[in-house]
Amino acid sequence: MKAEKEIKENKRTVDEAALSVLEQDQSGVETAFDRYLRMQPQCNFGRTGVCCRICLQGPCRITKKADKGICGAHAYTIVARNLIRSITGGASAHSDHGRHLVYTVLEMLEDKALAYAIEDPQKLQRVAERLGINTDDKDEKEVLAEVAALALEDFIKASTDPCKWLETTIVKDRVDKFSECNILPRGVHTTIAETMAQTHMGMDADPVNLIFQGLKMALCDYIGMHIATDLSDILFGTPKPVTTEANFGVMEADMVNIALHGHNPLLSEMIVRVAREMKDDAVAAGARGIKCMGICCTGNEVLMRQGVPVLTNFLSQELPMMTGALDAMVVDVQCIMPGVKAVSECFHTRVVTTMPNAKIPGAHHVAFSEDRAAEKAKEIINLAIEAFKERKGLEVAIPQVKNKVTAGFSVEALEDILGELNPDQPFKVITDAIDSGQLRGVVLFAGCNNLRVLQDHSHNEIIRQLAKNDVLMVATGCAAGSAAKMGLMNDDAVELYAGEGLKSFIHSLNKANEEKLESNKLPLIFHMGSCVDNSRAFDLATALAKQWEIDMPKIPFVASAPEAMSEKAVAIGSWWVAMGLPTHVGVVPEVTGSALVNGIALQVAEDVYGGYFIWEEDPQKAAEKILAALDERTWKLRIHRGLADKYETELSKSY
Amino acid sequence: MKAEKEIKENKRTVDEAALSVLEQDQSGVETAFDRYLRMQPQCNFGRTGVCCRICLQGPCRITKKADKGICGAHAYTIVARNLIRSITGGASAHSDHGRHLVYTVLEMLEDKALAYAIEDPQKLQRVAERLGINTDDKDEKEVLAEVAALALEDFIKASTDPCKWLETTIVKDRVDKFSECNILPRGVHTTIAETMAQTHMGMDADPVNLIFQGLKMALCDYIGMHIATDLSDILFGTPKPVTTEANFGVMEADMVNIALHGHNPLLSEMIVRVAREMKDDAVAAGARGIKCMGICCTGNEVLMRQGVPVLTNFLSQELPMMTGALDAMVVDVQCIMPGVKAVSECFHTRVVTTMPNAKIPGAHHVAFSEDRAAEKAKEIINLAIEAFKERKGLEVAIPQVKNKVTAGFSVEALEDILGELNPDQPFKVITDAIDSGQLRGVVLFAGCNNLRVLQDHSHNEIIRQLAKNDVLMVATGCAAGSAAKMGLMNDDAVELYAGEGLKSFIHSLNKANEEKLESNKLPLIFHMGSCVDNSRAFDLATALAKQWEIDMPKIPFVASAPEAMSEKAVAIGSWWVAMGLPTHVGVVPEVTGSALVNGIALQVAEDVYGGYFIWEEDPQKAAEKILAALDERTWKLRIHRGLADKYETELSKSY
Repeated sequence: MKAEKEIKENKRTVDEAALSVLEQDQSGVETAFDRYLRMQPQCNFGRTGVCCRICLQGPCRITKKADKGICGAHAYTIVARNLIRSITGGASAHSDHGRHLVYTVLEMLEDKALAYAIEDPQKLQRVAERLGINTDDKDEKEVLAEVAALALEDFIKASTDPCKWLETTIVKDRVDKFSECNILPRGVHTTIAETMAQTHMGMDADPVNLIFQGLKMALCDYIGMHIATDLSDILFGTPKPVTTEANFGVMEADMVNIALHGHNPLLSEMIVRVAREMKDDAVAAGARGIKCMGICCTGNEVLMRQGVPVLTNFLSQELPMMTGALDAMVVDVQCIMPGVKAVSECFHTRVVTTMPNAKIPGAHHVAFSEDRAAEKAKEIINLAIEAFKERKGLEVAIPQVKNKVTAGFSVEALEDILGELNPDQPFKVITDAIDSGQLRGVVLFAGCNNLRVLQDHSHNEIIRQLAKNDVLMVATGCAAGSAAKMGLMNDDAVELYAGEGLKSFIHSLNKANEEKLESNKLPLIFHMGSCVDNSRAFDLATALAKQWEIDMPKIPFVASAPEAMSEKAVAIGSWWVAMGLPTHVGVVPEVTGSALVNGIALQVAEDVYGGYFIWEEDPQKAAEKILAALDERTWKLRIHRGLADKYETELSKSY
Repeated sequence: MKAEKEIKENKRTVDEAALSVLEQDQSGVETAFDRYLRMQPQCNFGRTGVCCRICLQGPCRITKKADKGICGAHAYTIVARNLIRSITGGASAHSDHGRHLVYTVLEMLEDKALAYAIEDPQKLQRVAERLGINTDDKDEKEVLAEVAALALEDFIKASTDPCKWLETTIVKDRVDKFSECNILPRGVHTTIAETMAQTHMGMDADPVNLIFQGLKMALCDYIGMHIATDLSDILFGTPKPVTTEANFGVMEADMVNIALHGHNPLLSEMIVRVAREMKDDAVAAGARGIKCMGICCTGNEVLMRQGVPVLTNFLSQELPMMTGALDAMVVDVQCIMPGVKAVSECFHTRVVTTMPNAKIPGAHHVAFSEDRAAEKAKEIINLAIEAFKERKGLEVAIPQVKNKVTAGFSVEALEDILGELNPDQPFKVITDAIDSGQLRGVVLFAGCNNLRVLQDHSHNEIIRQLAKNDVLMVATGCAAGSAAKMGLMNDDAVELYAGEGLKSFIHSLNKANEEKLESNKLPLIFHMGSCVDNSRAFDLATALAKQWEIDMPKIPFVASAPEAMSEKAVAIGSWWVAMGLPTHVGVVPEVTGSALVNGIALQVAEDVYGGYFIWEEDPQKAAEKILAALDERTWKLRIHRGLADKYETELSKSY
C-alpha cells in the first residue's frame, strides 16, 4: 500500500499541533488531509472554470475539439457564469448570517429572544447616526427597531435607492463610481435572484456584463457582512483588546473541552455564557471546569469579545477530536466539514449540529432557537459533560503546542489606541507613518485554508516578509487563526519579526497606551475578527482614505487571501477589488480557462475600479508583489501630496 | 475526416424541416447538433451529479477510491446540493420574468410605460378577487396597484406569512401539507438567498433537509410563474382559441421575416403590434409585408394571444437562419443559444439582443425599455427591413414544412368551452368523462428539447400513444412547440390519432361550441402557453381536484417532460411533484450518482407529498408508465367515490 503510505506521510500542513496529531494517530481515521490525496488528480476542466453544468444537456467541457458548449457558449461565458454563481453563493452565505441577526433583533424587540440584549448602546448610537436616523427622544429599543428595519430593507428591497449599508459606509467617490458603472444593487436578495437568473441557460453570454453583475453581487456580500458585524457588536459588544492562547495546547485533559465551530455569535456567545454558569455541573462530573474554545469564525467571534482561546482553523477542524480530549464540537453554520461526524465516531466526541439549515446525518441535533437560547445552550453543554464522563480512563494526547494571542481590534478599539497619540485625528497616526515612510502601507490577511497549498505555510511566510518590510497588518477569519496558532499575533512577534519602522510604530502606540492596554501589548498583526468582519478591515481602509481625502484606489492598502477556499472568499475578494484595492489570492481561482476573464480580473478591473487581483501561490513572490502594489500607491500618493521630493531618495533605496 | 462526416450525418432530430435544412446546408456553419457530437464523450461525474465545485479545493468527484469529497461530503450531499442549486437557477429565472412584469406594471401605474395598458379587466378582477382584494369603488388602476403590490411582496418578503400566489391558488390540503412539512416559503427572493446559503461549503450535509429546502425553492418557482401568467394576461389579454401554422414553412421569401425568440411578452407583444403598423415601410423596401413568428416561449406568448405562427422550438433555433430567409432574430431572455450569433455571421440575419441581462458579444443590441417600448420595437423592425434589403438576389431555401395549429387554451378559455356542456360546473365535464371511463386521465406535456435524445421524437411518440389511450392532453413551452410543428395540435390529429373515448369527448365539445369556436376546432392536444404557463396547467389540475373535492395526490393528472433541459424544467418538475402529481422526465437528471437522492425522487417523495418522478428515456415505456400512473389514481378514485363496481369490468379489460 505505497499510495496509502504516501497519503499518510504527506501531511500538507506546517501547523506543529496538527502534524503531531497526524503523526501519532493510530486510529486510522480519515481526515481531509487523506481525502485530498485520494482525490488526486483533480479535474482540470473544473479547475480552470471551463466545465458547464448549467443545463441538462451538459456537462460541457471546453477542449480543443469542442471549443464551445453545446449551446454555443464560449469559454469566457462559461467561466464568467461559474465565477459569478460562486460570488452569489458567498454573498448568500453572508446574507444568511446577517439576516439571522436581523431576525433575532426583531424577535428581541418583540420580547421573544429574551437572552439577548443591547450590550453596546454606544455602537447602536454610532450605527444609527451613520444611517441618518434621528435618535432624539428615542429609547434604545426604538433606535434599534429603526436600525433593524433598515437592515431588513437592505436585504429585501427591490427599489433602486442605494442600500443604506453601502451608501453610508463607503467614500462618496466609490458611490459615484458604482452608480456610473451601474452596479449599485437594488437589494441583497433581489441581486441574488437577478444573478442566478442572468446565469441561467440561454441568458447572458457577455462576460463583461456577467462580471459587472458579479461585482454588484459582491457589493451585496459586503452589505450582508457589514450588517452582521454592526448587529453583532450591538448585541454582544464591540471588541476590545484581549489576550489568550491558540492551538491544540489550549485543551486541558481535566476540563470538559467544548469546541465552538462555525460562524455566528448568536449560539456561541450563549454557550460561553452558560458554560460559566455550569461550572458546578462539570465539577460534579469529575472535571475541573468547562473550557470553551473556538474553531473558524464563531471561534473568532468569541475570541474577540470574550477572550475564548483559539483551538484551530478550518483545515485542521477534524484533528482536535483525535487527541481524545475534545468532549463536544458544537457547530452552527458554514465551513463545517461533514467529515467531522465520521471522525467523531472513532472517539467519544459529541458532534452537535444546531441550525435548521446545516445538519449532518447521524450527528446530535439540538435545534437552537433564539427564544430558548439559554436552555438550548444548557442542553448542548450537558451533552459535553456526558461525553466527558465517558472519557474517564481513556488515553488523551494533547500536543503541547500553543501561543499567546492578543486580539480584539475592532476599528473602534484601534481608533481608541491611535487616539492616544492624536486624539483629534486618530487615523492620521497611520497616514502620517505611511507618509513619512515609517510604514510601507497596510495589508489585510483574510480567507481560509485550502489543501491545494500547505496549510498555514503561505500565511506564515508572507506575514513575516511584510513585517520585516514595515507593513502594518490586520487579519480576519482563518487567516487570523493561522497567525494566532503560529505565534505571530502577539507582542513577542513584534520583537522577533518587525522591521525597524513597524517596530517603532507599534512601540510608540504601546507606550502611549500603557495604562489602557495593561497586559494586552500590541501584536505584530491585528486581529479584526471573523470573516464577516472584513467589513471592519474595510472600514479601516475607508478611515485612511478619508484621512488622506482621496478615493480608495489611491490608498496603499492591499488584501491577501493566501489560502482562499470558500465562495465567501470569492465574494469578498471581488468586492475588495471593486472597492478599489489590490487583492492577492494564493490559490489560483477557477478562471484561468478564459484568458479574457482572467485578464479582466488581473488587469481590466484596475482600469475601471482601481482594484485588481494578483494570483500568486509562491509566498516569497506573493510578498514581493504585495510590497510592489503598496509601493506603487505610496509613491503616487506622495507625488499627489507633494511629498515626493522629500522621500524620493529613501524610497528609491528600497529598489 | 470520418468523425466530421458522422457528425454531419447524425442529425439527432425527427423534425422534417430541421432535417431538410441540415441536409441541404452548404455553408458548413456549426450548430448545436454538431457541437453536441463534438462534446462526446461527456463527463459521467457531472452527468450523475457527483462532481462538486462548490469550494476552491475542488473539483471533488466521487469514485471508488475517493468515496467522499475533500470536506467529507458524501455523494448524497453533493448530488442534493447540485440538484437544489439547479432548482434555484430555474426559480430565479422564472422570478426574473415575473418581477420584470411587476416592474412594468408599477411603471405603467406611474404613467411611464405608456405603451402598456390593462387589456383584460375581467382577468384583473378575477385575480384581485382570488387575492382577497376588496375592489368595491376602486378603479382598474387602483386594483392593479394592489395586485402589483402583493405580487412584489411575494417576491421580496421575509415574513413567515404564506405567499399570496401560493396560498390562494392551491387546494387547502396542499397548504396544510406544506405547512406541516415546513416548506412554506417566506418569499421568493428570501428563499433563493436561503437555498444558495444552505448549499454553501460546510453548510447542510443532510440530503433530506436539502431536498426539502429544494422543494420550498420549487414552490417559489411556481409563485414566480403564476405571477408572470396573471400579469401577462392582465396586460395583454387572456388567451382564447386561435389558429395558425407551425414550422419553417411559415417563413415567406417575399416578406420581412422576423423571429421572436425568448420568453417574455413585454417586448414580443410590442413588436407584433408595431410590425402591423409598419407594413408600408416593408413594402417600400420591396417586401410584401412583415411576418413575425415565434421561437421558444416568447413565441408561445404571441401565438396564444396574437395567433403569431410558430417558427420552431429550442433545439432548432439556429436553423431558420440557414434558409437564408430570416431577416432578424429578436431575442429577450432565456434559452437563447449564444450560438445564434455565430450562425448569423454566415448569413444576412440580424441577431438583436434587447435585455440588459442577456447580451451576446457581437450581436446588435437595442436596449429595450418599457417606457420607450414602441420606439424600440420600431428600431428593431427597421434593422430587419434593412436586412431584407440586403437579402435581395440571395438564394433562399425554405423547407415547405408546416402544420396547422390551434392554440390559445387558457384555463378561462377551457372553462368557457366546457361551460357549453355544463354551465354551472364546467370542469365536471372532464371529471365525469374520467369517472365514466371515457377519458383515462389528463397529461401535461412540458419542457424543452435536449440533445441527449432525438429532438421531438419522444414528444411525438408519447403523445400518439396517450391519444390512442384516451388521455386528455395539454401542453406548454417547447413540448407544445414540438406538438405544433409535428401536426399534433389541430383537429385533423384528433381524427388520426385519438382513441374512441378521447375522440367522442372532443367531438362533443366541438359540437357544443360550434358557433364559438368557428374555424378553431379543438385539437388533439391543448396548447396552454409558455413555460411560465405551466401555472395554467396546474390551475386546471386544481380545478379538477376541487371538482372532485379531493387533494392533488388523488387526481389522475400526470406531467411529462420528455426532453427536459433547463434548470427551469428541474424547478417545475420539482414543484409538480411537491404538489402531489407524478412527473415523467425523458432524460435522467443528474441525480443517479446517489441512490439515496434518486430514491427520494422516485419513491420517498410519494410517501410525503403524493407526487413522484418517473425517469424513462424510451418513449414506448414512458407512455406505459404514464398510463399506469393515471390508472392507479383513476382506480383509487373510483373506489373512493364508490364507482369501482360499476367500471371495474371495463377497466380490467385494458390490462
